[in-house]
Amino acid sequence: MKKMAFQLKGIIPPMVTPLLSNDTLDVAGLERLLERMLAGGVSGVFVLGSTGEAPSLSYRLRREVIAESSRIINGRVPMLVGVADTSFEETVALSRYAAERGATALVVAPPFYFPVSGNDLRRYYQDLIRKLPLPMILYHMPGLTKVRFDAEMIAFAVDTPEIIALKESSGDLDFFWRSCRMARCRKHFPVLMGPEHLLAASIRLGGSGGVNGGANVFPELFVNMYHAAVKNDVATMDVLQKKIDRLNDIYAVPTGGMGVCRGMKYALKCLGVCGDLPAEPFHLLPRNEKKKIEAILDELK
Amino acid sequence: MKKMAFQLKGIIPPMVTPLLSNDTLDVAGLERLLERMLAGGVSGVFVLGSTGEAPSLSYRLRREVIAESSRIINGRVPMLVGVADTSFEETVALSRYAAERGATALVVAPPFYFPVSGNDLRRYYQDLIRKLPLPMILYHMPGLTKVRFDAEMIAFAVDTPEIIALKESSGDLDFFWRSCRMARCRKHFPVLMGPEHLLAASIRLGGSGGVNGGANVFPELFVNMYHAAVKNDVATMDVLQKKIDRLNDIYAVPTGGMGVCRGMKYALKCLGVCGDLPAEPFHLLPRNEKKKIEAILDELK
Amino acid sequence: MKKMAFQLKGIIPPMVTPLLSNDTLDVAGLERLLERMLAGGVSGVFVLGSTGEAPSLSYRLRREVIAESSRIINGRVPMLVGVADTSFEETVALSRYAAERGATALVVAPPFYFPVSGNDLRRYYQDLIRKLPLPMILYHMPGLTKVRFDAEMIAFAVDTPEIIALKESSGDLDFFWRSCRMARCRKHFPVLMGPEHLLAASIRLGGSGGVNGGANVFPELFVNMYHAAVKNDVATMDVLQKKIDRLNDIYAVPTGGMGVCRGMKYALKCLGVCGDLPAEPFHLLPRNEKKKIEAILDELK
Amino acid sequence: MKKMAFQLKGIIPPMVTPLLSNDTLDVAGLERLLERMLAGGVSGVFVLGSTGEAPSLSYRLRREVIAESSRIINGRVPMLVGVADTSFEETVALSRYAAERGATALVVAPPFYFPVSGNDLRRYYQDLIRKLPLPMILYHMPGLTKVRFDAEMIAFAVDTPEIIALKESSGDLDFFWRSCRMARCRKHFPVLMGPEHLLAASIRLGGSGGVNGGANVFPELFVNMYHAAVKNDVATMDVLQKKIDRLNDIYAVPTGGMGVCRGMKYALKCLGVCGDLPAEPFHLLPRNEKKKIEAILDELK
Repeated sequence: MKKMAFQLKGIIPPMVTPLLSNDTLDVAGLERLLERMLAGGVSGVFVLGSTGEAPSLSYRLRREVIAESSRIINGRVPMLVGVADTSFEETVALSRYAAERGATALVVAPPFYFPVSGNDLRRYYQDLIRKLPLPMILYHMPGLTKVRFDAEMIAFAVDTPEIIALKESSGDLDFFWRSCRMARCRKHFPVLMGPEHLLAASIRLGGSGGVNGGANVFPELFVNMYHAAVKNDVATMDVLQKKIDRLNDIYAVPTGGMGVCRGMKYALKCLGVCGDLPAEPFHLLPRNEKKKIEAILDELK
Repeated sequence: MKKMAFQLKGIIPPMVTPLLSNDTLDVAGLERLLERMLAGGVSGVFVLGSTGEAPSLSYRLRREVIAESSRIINGRVPMLVGVADTSFEETVALSRYAAERGATALVVAPPFYFPVSGNDLRRYYQDLIRKLPLPMILYHMPGLTKVRFDAEMIAFAVDTPEIIALKESSGDLDFFWRSCRMARCRKHFPVLMGPEHLLAASIRLGGSGGVNGGANVFPELFVNMYHAAVKNDVATMDVLQKKIDRLNDIYAVPTGGMGVCRGMKYALKCLGVCGDLPAEPFHLLPRNEKKKIEAILDELK
Repeated sequence: MKKMAFQLKGIIPPMVTPLLSNDTLDVAGLERLLERMLAGGVSGVFVLGSTGEAPSLSYRLRREVIAESSRIINGRVPMLVGVADTSFEETVALSRYAAERGATALVVAPPFYFPVSGNDLRRYYQDLIRKLPLPMILYHMPGLTKVRFDAEMIAFAVDTPEIIALKESSGDLDFFWRSCRMARCRKHFPVLMGPEHLLAASIRLGGSGGVNGGANVFPELFVNMYHAAVKNDVATMDVLQKKIDRLNDIYAVPTGGMGVCRGMKYALKCLGVCGDLPAEPFHLLPRNEKKKIEAILDELK
Repeated sequence: MKKMAFQLKGIIPPMVTPLLSNDTLDVAGLERLLERMLAGGVSGVFVLGSTGEAPSLSYRLRREVIAESSRIINGRVPMLVGVADTSFEETVALSRYAAERGATALVVAPPFYFPVSGNDLRRYYQDLIRKLPLPMILYHMPGLTKVRFDAEMIAFAVDTPEIIALKESSGDLDFFWRSCRMARCRKHFPVLMGPEHLLAASIRLGGSGGVNGGANVFPELFVNMYHAAVKNDVATMDVLQKKIDRLNDIYAVPTGGMGVCRGMKYALKCLGVCGDLPAEPFHLLPRNEKKKIEAILDELK
């Protein structure tokens, strides 16, 4: 396992994957997107997460995303790579490729077809860690993996040196807070908040930063919120919270709230960053939903 | 699309995948397993379903399962192949391989990472059907895919000629019954029951047969139940139902009921059919759980 | 405990409670409603159930409903009285009053504030039965009581002579079917279906009849469905099922589907039976929702 | 409506109801319990809440609890009285009695049999407020009432002068935090945390105090935690949190975690405060569960 020479804190956006077609990467869009986030002050980039639609992409395309992102980032910030898969073998293969291309760490949610927990899940991670070439970040995302971690799972992570952080996307502030209390047993074990409307609360409860999708669109908004929350500047937090809550309305636009990255991608298109094509099983938004997103963007600018 | 010269009714077991190691097929075990089911009177075989742990297997291994099963079945009964995947491209690639190797039809659950429903899901299936080389069976499995079908989804299936049947594994008899009533709009649109303890009830409510995991272990038990239910022979049904309910206790043995195929595989090992190794993220059962399964098998024999 | 000289089968409507104001019974409406149901061929009447809004009524009014209904029914069919309450003492007091006024049996759901199950719930029923002056019907209604029965609870009921039937309103056909199989251990232990769209299926799976709210509005529709299902007359069942499903749309009209008796009461008002005032916390339907109900009634007549 | 001359902040325990039999109040135990809490520094007392098993008590007994508690408290701190009921009329009647006996404010959860929300629920509260003789505290308790408030409901409360506070027992810190942000629109609108393990987090997120059942047993523990959290004294908070979490294990002891007041009552019995009899539908704990509680108490003393 490589040594880690970085600290995970601040804002680390889960990057959307710009597409030209269902199996074609938009390399120019990717470059604009990454430069925009880096200019906005982010502390790292997380590619091939849920926001990046990783499970919807072919394996060939996932490899291309890693290679091109690594080339563009070029070591300026840590690059985290999502390698969660239902198949152990495919996770290992993608992890090795990510290491070859210079990734900093691997983000691994539980396998997401069969729900697995308790000893089975811990045994799975132990088996996996033996084959991973990089440090691992544990990814808690029960809404999509159907697996809700318990305190024992957090204790396992805190006790396992190869696991260097927790990305908490359950949306359960109680569990987040408890995880932060448990993380204090280790010298440095950052707990990062996924759902962006909870970023400020998470910092006040002991969190280290945010992996917030909205930082694809407005990176500075989240970087500023992070700093306001660290300083406990309530007045600024109240102002920024209203903006973040409004930005969140964009993801709710697609009927039923499914495929949140569609709203995000359309916002990025409006800002001239990249196209709005989502990967199957999602499709372009209808005209009326696009109008709603344009209105929200107008308010926020 | 190839013409279909078969009728889906009776018992079509979702085959477990015998393994020598996490990425090695047990070909001899596969042969014994298939012969046992065919001798038991099954009407078809469904490979690479949930019971077959398909999402846990590498793509290489999934292809090997298709090739070897096809070789062994050799056209004696229809071979259905599960090709559901989170990635559209990978589903298409596997479907083409299955067609080349002589599969009869493809079983397709919704993509199982991002929940997708309504128009998006129907559009997904339309896009997919254009690229599928074989007829499709719609697979309703909300417990694992997080997507619960509504009546509109069933209407879509009944109205789409390329979709030739519904495999109903929601466990919701009300929805099953409603689907059967809707299916009567088409000349022949079989609705097949997944959860085996509901097989008898499903036949009485208008179903065409069962895709029941327990038929890996005791194929005749399910074939007999199917015939008893068609004849509405209540006395026989009551006797067989007790056996099926008892067999079901085997799958509940793994702590928490997760990884049901583990119990099934251990029962098959006890019967001398194949080994009991499950694919990651699951592991061999502990000794005390094996004892429970042995006791149940003793009762049933 | 009084001897029971009746058989529970066929249709036993859960009667709505006609009101002139939040605490005033509409006695004339009650008379028209009861006569309409009796003329329609119902086998009994169940007063003070969920459909009767019992928990929303003052204790004084509940007593009046019992007294007036008993006077009108006058022994022509069995009168079942709902006495479920969060307070043991209040349940006992109301049960005694019902017995004095000539009720046939008491319908008792679990206490509905604190969820209680297992041994505690059985002990509760044992304590209660010792104080009840009439036979008891067990009422399974997890949607409102938060308590889902298990097989052990059904076994307890079948083994307890003072419990004479099960009213199954969980909407879970699997559990209904299982309950029917378990009920065969006793000479006569009727299992009655609550949700009316499942009446036909329930009869085919071994049920004895229906406690269906829609029978307040169109008693003959349900009596006819009961007889068609007993004869397994599929053609008639398909015709009647469409009508029942359409009638069900009436209850879905109140926004959010809450307070289903509101739609039912408005339908009864349109038919000249009684007024449409629901008890608090519900209120009269808005004009546009009334229009929808009128349209459905026009279709059904 | 009476003028309010008190501020709701700090710890206001939801008092358990000491019983001699299912319908007999333990007046001596009640006196010891109240004096113990007052000596521990509580800011008020809330009688007839969920912890007080109010819905399980007869109306006669509820009145006695009000009268006796009022006599003992004798104006030393505010007395809040829970009057939630499924019946509007019974809620009004009990509220009037509470006012006559000197209650300070009424705590009103939504009616808890039929789920009611949105406009219907607001209309219900408006109708009720017109008949209430005292200020009202809104009680959010979705686990028992099945009704989960939304932001609109909080806005309604903040805009209604007769509603003077929110008791938040959803256990959802995100909603708590949001409610606190909304409450800032009014000069003084306290938001009080129910679940005691969240007391410290709630204060850091803007809450005004706690309505914590554990304060029946160890009032000073909660009063101290409240002050530590106000000062953001993390070291003390970590120490007290461990104690509160351990105390919480007591409530989890009753099998299935149901009837949490049983564990609390047994702890109070061990401390010589009052007897451990719960109201029906709950019963005395078995010997082995009592042992566990004794062990926890030994640790905490």
